[in-house]
Amino acid sequence: MNYRMILYIMGQILKGVGLFMLLPIIVGFIYGEEHVVSSFGIPFIALMVVSFSLTVKKPKDNSIFSMEGFVSVAASWITMSIIGAVPFVISGEIPDFADALFETVSGFTTTGATILSDVESMSKSCLFWRAFTHWIGGMGILMFVLAIMSSNDSRTMHMMRAECAGPKAGKLVSKSRFSARILYVIYISLTVLETIMLLFGGMPLYDSIIHACSSAGTGGFSIWSDSIAHYNSVYIEMVIAVFIILFGVNFNLYYYMLIKKFSPAFKNEEARTYFGIILTATVIITINTMKIFGSVGEALRHSFFMVASTITSAGFATTDTSQFPVFSQTLLTLLMFVGSCAGSTGGGMKVSRILILFKTGIKELKYIVNPRAVATVKMDGKPVENDVVRGVSSYFILFMIILAFSLLLITLDSYSIEESASAVITCMNNIGFGVGRFGTAGNLGGLTSFSKIVLCFDMLIGRLEIYPLIMLFASKKH
Amino acid sequence: MNYRMILYIMGQILKGVGLFMLLPIIVGFIYGEEHVVSSFGIPFIALMVVSFSLTVKKPKDNSIFSMEGFVSVAASWITMSIIGAVPFVISGEIPDFADALFETVSGFTTTGATILSDVESMSKSCLFWRAFTHWIGGMGILMFVLAIMSSNDSRTMHMMRAECAGPKAGKLVSKSRFSARILYVIYISLTVLETIMLLFGGMPLYDSIIHACSSAGTGGFSIWSDSIAHYNSVYIEMVIAVFIILFGVNFNLYYYMLIKKFSPAFKNEEARTYFGIILTATVIITINTMKIFGSVGEALRHSFFMVASTITSAGFATTDTSQFPVFSQTLLTLLMFVGSCAGSTGGGMKVSRILILFKTGIKELKYIVNPRAVATVKMDGKPVENDVVRGVSSYFILFMIILAFSLLLITLDSYSIEESASAVITCMNNIGFGVGRFGTAGNLGGLTSFSKIVLCFDMLIGRLEIYPLIMLFASKKH
Repeated sequence: MNYRMILYIMGQILKGVGLFMLLPIIVGFIYGEEHVVSSFGIPFIALMVVSFSLTVKKPKDNSIFSMEGFVSVAASWITMSIIGAVPFVISGEIPDFADALFETVSGFTTTGATILSDVESMSKSCLFWRAFTHWIGGMGILMFVLAIMSSNDSRTMHMMRAECAGPKAGKLVSKSRFSARILYVIYISLTVLETIMLLFGGMPLYDSIIHACSSAGTGGFSIWSDSIAHYNSVYIEMVIAVFIILFGVNFNLYYYMLIKKFSPAFKNEEARTYFGIILTATVIITINTMKIFGSVGEALRHSFFMVASTITSAGFATTDTSQFPVFSQTLLTLLMFVGSCAGSTGGGMKVSRILILFKTGIKELKYIVNPRAVATVKMDGKPVENDVVRGVSSYFILFMIILAFSLLLITLDSYSIEESASAVITCMNNIGFGVGRFGTAGNLGGLTSFSKIVLCFDMLIGRLEIYPLIMLFASKKH
Repeated sequence: MNYRMILYIMGQILKGVGLFMLLPIIVGFIYGEEHVVSSFGIPFIALMVVSFSLTVKKPKDNSIFSMEGFVSVAASWITMSIIGAVPFVISGEIPDFADALFETVSGFTTTGATILSDVESMSKSCLFWRAFTHWIGGMGILMFVLAIMSSNDSRTMHMMRAECAGPKAGKLVSKSRFSARILYVIYISLTVLETIMLLFGGMPLYDSIIHACSSAGTGGFSIWSDSIAHYNSVYIEMVIAVFIILFGVNFNLYYYMLIKKFSPAFKNEEARTYFGIILTATVIITINTMKIFGSVGEALRHSFFMVASTITSAGFATTDTSQFPVFSQTLLTLLMFVGSCAGSTGGGMKVSRILILFKTGIKELKYIVNPRAVATVKMDGKPVENDVVRGVSSYFILFMIILAFSLLLITLDSYSIEESASAVITCMNNIGFGVGRFGTAGNLGGLTSFSKIVLCFDMLIGRLEIYPLIMLFASKKH
């Protein structure tokens, strides 16, 4: 393995994170929060020094393979989470380091699960940084670095695969025509558009930026304990719901639309299924919750928002879902596994994987009946390569194995099986809320540090889609 | 599809069930229970008339393929469950038909989940029939019919596959050397041996036969509400624990030992893993429950029994597991999925499938690092065929999909997510007890008829390993 090159890439990524830290410093100056000089200044300088020393000399051998891509991404995400947690500790707003680390990992991985019971007491700069980690993590920091510095050569492909979501990211993103730059332009445009739309709804500028960043990464951190319910505005809820749904669509489709190739965009099977699931789940949960809300309108309002918030993995809330019937809570939990589209900022297992899993199951049934018949799994009318089909099955298997072991470790804590399972499910799928004491009205602050570390691992496993993190630990053997 | 042949096979199977019904009639006469004349006599005559009319003329075209095997087994199991429930209804001991059907499906599928809160009030003949359905279902009724009537030709292989458990049953059972007859001889011998061992422990003859039948099928029905705890005898607990573990081993291994081929028996990877898991889980749960039981000895006693009872899918109880720490409860729940060995009477997904799933995951990780390296999944040192590996992945996927949908349907009932999930998991894996109100101290009687029917389907899906039941419903289209 090319360790020098791994360190070089890490240096580049940490430089990116360092530069991003200037933003909360600016926010701090605007709001007269003097603590930013130390709380963000110190990690900023540390990041700059480290990244400078790592990138001062470009390695002669700049060859990069899958392994290097995976390892550098995993190592970078862990490092940036550790350093990203420092401001919370120095400012004293989250004094315990395990807590601060959890909050930062939850931010970068766009999970949005929080250990805070009193979000409102935090400073503006820290709240900004907290939400902004969602924005950074949503599209990916490596992607950002690539957007700024590099041309699109085959080397970067190996790395994009490591940070990009979905069963065949490396193949969807066409090598020559697409670039990290275009992805980021679309990402920034949508974020700005949402900010403006929220301003129209009467939301203050600061709040609008925070919630736009949080939506963009489908993260879910808000600046209020009661999340979006705080504004009690149907307009704001609908803007956020629509935007998180849009951020949950494969960005390649926006690119297709930009270059006026509407047919592949509108016929995309994954996106159609995604919208179909949102529609179906909204109708079912509306019917199931009608009694609770007293009117179809109110039930529809909250059902639509919570379905959107769950399937996109945003994890915002307009209502306390623990009041929902058990059926609706279960349906929402299943939607967590489904997640959003590949190549989006959303979490979960991704709609395309779920589609391929269903089709693999059906193919097996056909095979059982007639072993000689050749059945293939098709997506968008085209056969899916065997490697991808097998990869998706294996992904599902590994996901479930990790889920089972994480659950066992979490149950050493003092929560019920149901709550423990919901914590693991919400973290692995990067959603943000579970059930019971971890529900939309609760938080994960009561867990032991050990459980928090396990969940940090789960969030990273979910966001980076298993392989980078395992490779990082497995690579030590070589 | 050869419908005439399917009906012919069904006729043979129903004849077998009918003959077995003579046993509870004999029990009834011994204990002077006159109701057996009507409660068992009527279904016995019905079975004989139906099976006679179906088998009076052997079809000229006796060709049988996978599809016919699956469909006839699924249809037979449903029919024999419906008729097997009749005695409970006629005798008035389980007046509601949905309840009686649930109890009978739970019996035949060797699940052992009960809707009864007062088992002790039942008549001896009904309690015998209830436990005896475990014995019939454990090895399989079709297998019994084959043992009596047929030579081992390729046709019967298609059918054995449908009722036999494990990822590659049709391949493990060698065509020429092995026969259903040998399996049944081993099965009967072990059952008789357990009965004798229980008698030595001071258990009355009737109780011994009941518990031996229930152990043999790894079912779990007892004649006491507090199950094996009723006897409060370490000797009896150990006999039952050891025997259910033995019934959870692949019967082919006993055959190997009979023909003095000890090497393949003792080196069998699945069996070694199975014993390894039992040992490890027992140690872990003993440590975890030591505080509750007050002494290592008591903790070990109950931990060993409950681990054996769970992994073999027997579902007997010596203690109320809802008093266990959440960690131990979760570990037991995970063991439910693991289950026992392929080709045994036990339930769950089977140790060999779990082994192949783990190895498939590891193979994928190797592939991700180096797509050109050829990695194979090995069992017992030999490469597993790609078809089997893919089949196991697909089985897992289908299992989880069915689990998810069943859970959704069950949550329409009034139980918590945790209890509902435990009901589905315990039924799909044919265990018998869940958590909360469905725990070892509870029962499933409070569910709606709709939920009971869903769980009946799940139990059959678990016992017949998905395909036969789906084929039955899918075949209507052709």
